[in-house]
Amino acid sequence: MCGIVGYIGNAEAVPVLLNGLAKLEYRGYDSAGISVYHDGIYTIKAKGRLANLAEKIDKEDTLSSHMGIGHTRWATHGAPSDRNSHPHNSQSGKISVVHNGIIENYMEIKAFLQEKGYVFVSETDTEVVAQLFDYYYEGNPVETLSKVVRKVRGAYALAIMCIDHPDSLVAVRKDCPLLAGLSSDGNYVASDIPALLEYTRDYYLLDDNEIVFLTKEGVTLYDLDGNEIHKDVFRVTWDIDAAEKGGYDYFMMKEIMEQPEALRKTVFPRMTETRISFEDISLTEEEIKNFNRIHIVACGSAWHAGVVGRYVMEEVSRIPVEVDIASEFRYRNPILNQNDLCIIISQSGETADTLAALREAKKQGVKVLSIVNVVGSSIARESDDVLYTWAGPEIAVATTKGYTTQLSLLYLVSLYFAKVRGTVEEEHLNEYLQELRLLPQKTEEVLKLDTKMAELAKKYAQSEDVFIIGRGLDYAAAMESSLKLKEISYIHSEAYAAGELKHGTISLIEEGTLVIAIATQERLFEKLVSNAKEVKARGAKVIAIAVEGNLAMEEVADEVIYLPKSGDIFTSSYNVLPMQLFAYYTAVERGCDVDKPRNLAKSVTVE
Amino acid sequence: MCGIVGYIGNAEAVPVLLNGLAKLEYRGYDSAGISVYHDGIYTIKAKGRLANLAEKIDKEDTLSSHMGIGHTRWATHGAPSDRNSHPHNSQSGKISVVHNGIIENYMEIKAFLQEKGYVFVSETDTEVVAQLFDYYYEGNPVETLSKVVRKVRGAYALAIMCIDHPDSLVAVRKDCPLLAGLSSDGNYVASDIPALLEYTRDYYLLDDNEIVFLTKEGVTLYDLDGNEIHKDVFRVTWDIDAAEKGGYDYFMMKEIMEQPEALRKTVFPRMTETRISFEDISLTEEEIKNFNRIHIVACGSAWHAGVVGRYVMEEVSRIPVEVDIASEFRYRNPILNQNDLCIIISQSGETADTLAALREAKKQGVKVLSIVNVVGSSIARESDDVLYTWAGPEIAVATTKGYTTQLSLLYLVSLYFAKVRGTVEEEHLNEYLQELRLLPQKTEEVLKLDTKMAELAKKYAQSEDVFIIGRGLDYAAAMESSLKLKEISYIHSEAYAAGELKHGTISLIEEGTLVIAIATQERLFEKLVSNAKEVKARGAKVIAIAVEGNLAMEEVADEVIYLPKSGDIFTSSYNVLPMQLFAYYTAVERGCDVDKPRNLAKSVTVE
Repeated sequence: MCGIVGYIGNAEAVPVLLNGLAKLEYRGYDSAGISVYHDGIYTIKAKGRLANLAEKIDKEDTLSSHMGIGHTRWATHGAPSDRNSHPHNSQSGKISVVHNGIIENYMEIKAFLQEKGYVFVSETDTEVVAQLFDYYYEGNPVETLSKVVRKVRGAYALAIMCIDHPDSLVAVRKDCPLLAGLSSDGNYVASDIPALLEYTRDYYLLDDNEIVFLTKEGVTLYDLDGNEIHKDVFRVTWDIDAAEKGGYDYFMMKEIMEQPEALRKTVFPRMTETRISFEDISLTEEEIKNFNRIHIVACGSAWHAGVVGRYVMEEVSRIPVEVDIASEFRYRNPILNQNDLCIIISQSGETADTLAALREAKKQGVKVLSIVNVVGSSIARESDDVLYTWAGPEIAVATTKGYTTQLSLLYLVSLYFAKVRGTVEEEHLNEYLQELRLLPQKTEEVLKLDTKMAELAKKYAQSEDVFIIGRGLDYAAAMESSLKLKEISYIHSEAYAAGELKHGTISLIEEGTLVIAIATQERLFEKLVSNAKEVKARGAKVIAIAVEGNLAMEEVADEVIYLPKSGDIFTSSYNVLPMQLFAYYTAVERGCDVDKPRNLAKSVTVE
Repeated sequence: MCGIVGYIGNAEAVPVLLNGLAKLEYRGYDSAGISVYHDGIYTIKAKGRLANLAEKIDKEDTLSSHMGIGHTRWATHGAPSDRNSHPHNSQSGKISVVHNGIIENYMEIKAFLQEKGYVFVSETDTEVVAQLFDYYYEGNPVETLSKVVRKVRGAYALAIMCIDHPDSLVAVRKDCPLLAGLSSDGNYVASDIPALLEYTRDYYLLDDNEIVFLTKEGVTLYDLDGNEIHKDVFRVTWDIDAAEKGGYDYFMMKEIMEQPEALRKTVFPRMTETRISFEDISLTEEEIKNFNRIHIVACGSAWHAGVVGRYVMEEVSRIPVEVDIASEFRYRNPILNQNDLCIIISQSGETADTLAALREAKKQGVKVLSIVNVVGSSIARESDDVLYTWAGPEIAVATTKGYTTQLSLLYLVSLYFAKVRGTVEEEHLNEYLQELRLLPQKTEEVLKLDTKMAELAKKYAQSEDVFIIGRGLDYAAAMESSLKLKEISYIHSEAYAAGELKHGTISLIEEGTLVIAIATQERLFEKLVSNAKEVKARGAKVIAIAVEGNLAMEEVADEVIYLPKSGDIFTSSYNVLPMQLFAYYTAVERGCDVDKPRNLAKSVTVE
């Protein structure tokens, strides 16, 4: 994770850098820091939130400058502290560096430099970049950065300033996001577009190992041999308001409530009541008919979307589907076949493990279809086909609309494959499509549980251990629900296949333990009632989520939440909604910072 | 779960029933009870452990009787209480019933009988059996039981006594275990052999819906139409001492220490240094070469063994493997193919969900190979091929030798398939086999960590939340390690793929949280060091498990446990051992009843 930003131009650099970092804080907030050119290189940094840094800067005399770099950190090497914060400077004080990523061979380089007499002050991998740059430097920052890039191994986005060059900045990326922003008022680099959206809509999307040379007049790109690279300017069409809170206390609630609209934008352009439109993808009907297996690969909530996708895909298209955690898939020597398809899911399109999995699949000659939210992101660019979720920018670390829009595309793809393969009858398919068209509207309806879930959260907010159980699609929903609760409220919640609880974990159920039973699948409803009875018999408090008309939970559970009927395959889109609300209000009750949970960051660009 | 026993003969019935129940207590201990014939039917029952019942009986006048039935309960319907305990009697007092299983249509039958004027006193499903028996009774218990069986739906083992017949007992099973024991001193029924091993070695293994009619002279079996059935007597060859503690405080520690011997018995008869012997299985080389996919299906720890099996099988034989939780598999309409193989794993061979999964696979025409410990169990009998683990009786609820012997057979099967398919070179295969022959001896060596793990347990026993992380095979080991800790020490521990922690769960790590990092795979070791650093940076205490010679954890972890080198595919057999010991000592430190954790039972014969 980590976010970086750089600026050179006519404006005052400090506010530009701080504004940019504020928009990047979702990428980490263990510490923050900036370096600006102000009678040489002036570096200031602070542990904790960006606010601490801003406060520290306020205490300084006016810090006027027209160029600088900034960083917000998610700690990987070394505990969060002032000393380990970025920027890191060379021992000479002539070079200052901000870095997102990991330098894998930093120990080796450190030893090499120590032998040359360099002394290190931090525990970080980044400090070696500053020192190495210093070591190689002979007057030309672009040439020097080339040498540095050839020496280091790992994943990085780097922005570097050099005391001899108050009129330029250099930057480069490999496997970590970075883009250059262009404006008449100066030029920028940043990890992500929202950091710069206030200043410009024009960007260069950078590829690996392209060196960026910024002056206040312009941006030039070079390859590692010093040849200039020319590329098109990418123009952003987003609404700038979309990245603001719009009256809600937290981005998360705003994004929860945006789900109906996000679903409309994602689903409706791709379907009518009798047709699915995938003309823009390159997969032929022949290929789809010949699929041997599908591998869905993702991390975190996107992986949970994949678990739902597997159930639905297997059910309707009868293609065997395997779902893998990206960090597992990439290292386990997966068995891939020419007739397989790999579906990659990532909101940011930059998740490091997922990107590596994509590359592994492509290396083995397997076609990749990706489901991504951020347009022009690495995963989107490297896939054979990309389906965008049109959820708009997601700022809260805990995903909501990102997840439910991913689900909606997985339904569409599954139904499309089913149609091509003839595994679902026309009539039945049309019923599914009609139900799918109701998704935005029914989502809106379910979100009216808002007040009810706030009440329940108030009642159960002090739970320390929560178990969320379900079977089949409800189990998938339990996984995502549990993660929501964990990441923002710090409650140790755990999802369990309801039938598996009795094989050990039920020993943790004692008087008052909260168990949430998700029972929204018609044919498994009675089984869940039995499982709820088992935990109830051990003293658990039970909240059940059921579908309207299935009343048997009333006799067992302490609370029952009802969802509208939707046909079994779509239930995962509804049962997660009350749980998003429950997690949100529980976190609020517990006084947690909903949008920025401790230790977490949004776009996970390290392994 | 639940255990039942019945006796009729020359001896005093009460001690026989109590002895039998003591051996069945692993099947549940929420309550216990007996009915004996003593001037009519005399029923006595008590909540909690069997000891409470024994105490209650001691307070009675001498309870002389020569026939009776007994029950130890794992609650499914209705909280554990005297009233809900078994035996359940008819309103008339003329019929007494013990039951293991669930009657699914009990609500319907209850309503039917209430209309006829029957009044019910408990919340259980079992009471309807007693009342229904009473309703149908016209003088012949075998005929009456036939009628009852035709009416009820569900899974059950039933033993029934009838006031008009002081000289006989009737019993029947469907999808729950029951066997009849034969001796010159009387005859028996019980859920499992250890209950009767003190009295007889001769048994009838019963099939579904065979009605057992016991007198003190003999046992007759009937089908539901009243025709007599003849079958062979099964003679048990176990050592009776094997079912006793042999000087250890708990069965669990005895069973941990028995692992080297159990592995020897399981592995050595099936291999030499250059050959694997599977002549007794019916799978042909042709079938093995044509496998399309393998489905491993199991519950609890056996499922974790399957997760390990998947990695190893895919790695060496390159057959795609899918691992499923049995309760999920049976209800998710799995995609099965004629060329697929289903591997079913169960220690008891009676796990209800696993048995149902086996039947689903067979129904779809897929061959089933099972890995089972209990000879003659339902799963063993219904599989096309069975490989027995020769672990001997496992009494502690938390499995140890059951699990590690399952792993050893999974290695053998994987290597055998690899040999047949030619996916591993001869030379390499022989290296694997040599390493496999060292399994018992190295297991012995690793168990010397006993004292070290006891010390660590003392130090960390008060943890309330523990996270166990690993990648690949180490992740599989983390799952089993976490379950061990959970089920006997009641610590909320959770296993996580190490690369996935940062996608949410890392928010739960705070100052002092215990994280156990399993890092025994050479090629993933450095990655785990990085993951350990991430949690360490957030204040976690870290215990690492690594392989001798890999020292980099020393700089990160608070404690490092070293295991011998074994080649990557076998690491799961070793890294789980210190965790078995750690879980054991943690439970002891916390004052838990190691062999009989709350809410749990061993052989899970309900869904």
